[in-house]
Amino acid sequence: MLVLVSYDVMVSSSGGPKRLRKVAKACTNYGQRVQFSVFECVVDPAQWAALKNTLENIIDVETDSLRYYYLGANYKNRVEHFGLAKSYAVDEPLII
Amino acid sequence: MLVLVSYDVMVSSSGGPKRLRKVAKACTNYGQRVQFSVFECVVDPAQWAALKNTLENIIDVETDSLRYYYLGANYKNRVEHFGLAKSYAVDEPLII
Repeated sequence: MLVLVSYDVMVSSSGGPKRLRKVAKACTNYGQRVQFSVFECVVDPAQWAALKNTLENIIDVETDSLRYYYLGANYKNRVEHFGLAKSYAVDEPLII
Repeated sequence: MLVLVSYDVMVSSSGGPKRLRKVAKACTNYGQRVQFSVFECVVDPAQWAALKNTLENIIDVETDSLRYYYLGANYKNRVEHFGLAKSYAVDEPLII
């Protein structure tokens, strides 16, 4: 199934860029970084349980949030892209 | 139906913050800003056609991208949130 993970992090906060890099690394084990802080993860239920747990241990719940969207198994016709088709490296510097 | 709109904009580029504000304004006519550049829009097909057209005329396709996720009518159990429950004002300054 596809789970879309959107991570809202205050990159100006202490440790923010480091947390974003960790979230990106965890997510890209299972998929791709499609936008600056949006990740598409293709996972089975056990992988998702593990990934979710990992993510929730990375973020700072006082300043950050994660939002998950469950797109199911037939996700290909649920996704559409317009504009620049940029690919992100997981370790891309956080210059925005 | 719920359409998730994720907008990747280079806010450091010329006009970037202004484009993000315009995208936010267009989307929040139909829903809410759930993260810095992620919007949940509840639309019917005609509203979505109009909104999509508006968005695609706002962005700079050389530097920005939009990604749409169609969550359908039964979207409530497809969305989950963890961490800070921040609400964004459409006109919030772009300090990140």
